[in-house]
Amino acid sequence: MQAARFHGRGDIRIDDIPDPQARLGAVTIDIAWCGICGTDLHEYLDGPIFIPPVGHPHPLTHEQVPVTMGHEFSGTITQVGDDVADLHVGEHVVVEPYFVCGHCSQCVAGRYNLCTSMGFIGLAGGGGGLSERIVVDQRWVHPIGDIPLDQAALIEPLAVAHHAWVRSGATSGDIAFVGGAGPIGLLLAAVLHAEGLTVIVSEPGAARKAMAASTGVADHVLDPTIDDVRARVLELTDGRGADVGFECSSVQVVLDQLIDVVRPGGVIVNVSIWSSRASIDIQKVVLKELDLRGTIAYRDDHPASIDLVRTGKVDLAPFITAKIPLERLVPDGFQALIDHRETAVKILVTPNGPTS
Amino acid sequence: MQAARFHGRGDIRIDDIPDPQARLGAVTIDIAWCGICGTDLHEYLDGPIFIPPVGHPHPLTHEQVPVTMGHEFSGTITQVGDDVADLHVGEHVVVEPYFVCGHCSQCVAGRYNLCTSMGFIGLAGGGGGLSERIVVDQRWVHPIGDIPLDQAALIEPLAVAHHAWVRSGATSGDIAFVGGAGPIGLLLAAVLHAEGLTVIVSEPGAARKAMAASTGVADHVLDPTIDDVRARVLELTDGRGADVGFECSSVQVVLDQLIDVVRPGGVIVNVSIWSSRASIDIQKVVLKELDLRGTIAYRDDHPASIDLVRTGKVDLAPFITAKIPLERLVPDGFQALIDHRETAVKILVTPNGPTS
Repeated sequence: MQAARFHGRGDIRIDDIPDPQARLGAVTIDIAWCGICGTDLHEYLDGPIFIPPVGHPHPLTHEQVPVTMGHEFSGTITQVGDDVADLHVGEHVVVEPYFVCGHCSQCVAGRYNLCTSMGFIGLAGGGGGLSERIVVDQRWVHPIGDIPLDQAALIEPLAVAHHAWVRSGATSGDIAFVGGAGPIGLLLAAVLHAEGLTVIVSEPGAARKAMAASTGVADHVLDPTIDDVRARVLELTDGRGADVGFECSSVQVVLDQLIDVVRPGGVIVNVSIWSSRASIDIQKVVLKELDLRGTIAYRDDHPASIDLVRTGKVDLAPFITAKIPLERLVPDGFQALIDHRETAVKILVTPNGPTS
Repeated sequence: MQAARFHGRGDIRIDDIPDPQARLGAVTIDIAWCGICGTDLHEYLDGPIFIPPVGHPHPLTHEQVPVTMGHEFSGTITQVGDDVADLHVGEHVVVEPYFVCGHCSQCVAGRYNLCTSMGFIGLAGGGGGLSERIVVDQRWVHPIGDIPLDQAALIEPLAVAHHAWVRSGATSGDIAFVGGAGPIGLLLAAVLHAEGLTVIVSEPGAARKAMAASTGVADHVLDPTIDDVRARVLELTDGRGADVGFECSSVQVVLDQLIDVVRPGGVIVNVSIWSSRASIDIQKVVLKELDLRGTIAYRDDHPASIDLVRTGKVDLAPFITAKIPLERLVPDGFQALIDHRETAVKILVTPNGPTS
């Protein structure tokens, strides 16, 4: 079958590789659509980062470069292994793309996203969504009912956003500030909006600002290059400040803004991946009794994320900005994200069939 | 009466000032003992910091330099104003030394320690514990029963420690790491020990290490100049890491250690006051899903703190390292803290009577 594999920095190839083998307790899925994640782009530009380099195979998959990429995917079950319950051939599904050890203290406590050996399908081995098919253990497979398969490829990043919201502890009626409207910032705004929060998005990019507004996920869109963000947030919150803030940009000035615009006793969730240390005005964190919380991936967030889409509370369609065939992955996928990062939200790739 | 007043940086004088006036809803307290806080020392060395300088009176007290100092005090009620319920002449009490506005969103939500106009008795005006007597609104006065008055002067910093523990969410059976065993670190260890946690203290100072061990508040005492702190904490926690960590030193390397030694999904509470920004490895905060929480002063912590002492779960006596008369405040108090900071835990000052 065809599979996009990472061979090294800047070297992703469409290879012809053997089909994955069906196995006990697992299902075979024909991939419908797979999104390109910012993490994939980081691997392409600066990797291997999460991908296990040659000589350092992943402790759970025992695989190393080259590995098949892609972890944001949807598809149709074509084969069901023995010992699989409640999953059926023909069913449309998405995958929570984890490898976890199952026995470390984090796994035992149910915090499997914090497993000390954790790996991702599409990065650590085990195949990936940027290929024709994949075999996945039943634990990680979630039926999606009648959600269109293209939209379903966005359920994985939606689960990231859902988990960030869960980490925040924010509830309906709260006011949220979202710093950065890239794919995760937009999907987070969608979750917050669906959960009954008032959402203030701050974003300098014209296309992203427009999408935050046109999709209705933001109640207010600020431009930090024009607006006095702190003054505007205070104005929009009757002087109180936002109840909760989300860092979705990996930008120092945004983190500083969050510490300023979140009210005393409020919560800041850092959602983005940083490649450098951050500086914080810790005296403000102390005097305002702020909580700065990290969030990574998701755990037990897929069912609720799927429900948000099935019930129409979140519409993922507007966030799909391009659809391309697998053979055009590098020029129309990775290179397009590099050249037009600001206008591209989610590029979907299909290894099977037409792109429209 | 005699009162120690801050006139400017390095200029604290024992002045003769008028007695405070009794008023409706307030009680007059003859001061027994008053501790010198690190905050007082910061004011003496680098102030005015929290003290309102000339031309900038505090919004609630309308006072400015010179102000009477001292906010860690105990005493005896000598007069009870009209409209005061449940407080009686002769009763031994401590004071929660707040001025709050009562109407900001934080006060309305019950988070009065985060009041946007908040001030402290002994810093913002309203008299202080480093004087012969004070008049305090009944809301802030807490009877202490038969707790010795000298130990009771430590209930204010004990409440700081108690609030830091409440902010952490840690419960009996958890393992806590305390970075720094100054007065607050030691009292925090005492609270954690009383609440059933296992306490690991890391501290380089010989006298402080000895006190953490001799008082029994620490189950394990590490020396970061000798021990590999991360390795030792992993060893003491079966490889898991501490459930919760407390930053009690304002030292960058301690904050870094906390991020390393607290387990994934754990909590770090920053208790100390920083005079500079901090640098954090935010990627670790994200990948470990840590919570970094600020804590300031206390709210509703005095009753539980008093109970810890009354029931014998916390013994404050060992932390009193000197007792001096008010007239020796600068040479034997502030200067002693500067010259012998490492060996002095809590120096108590009395304006009334003998020091032994």
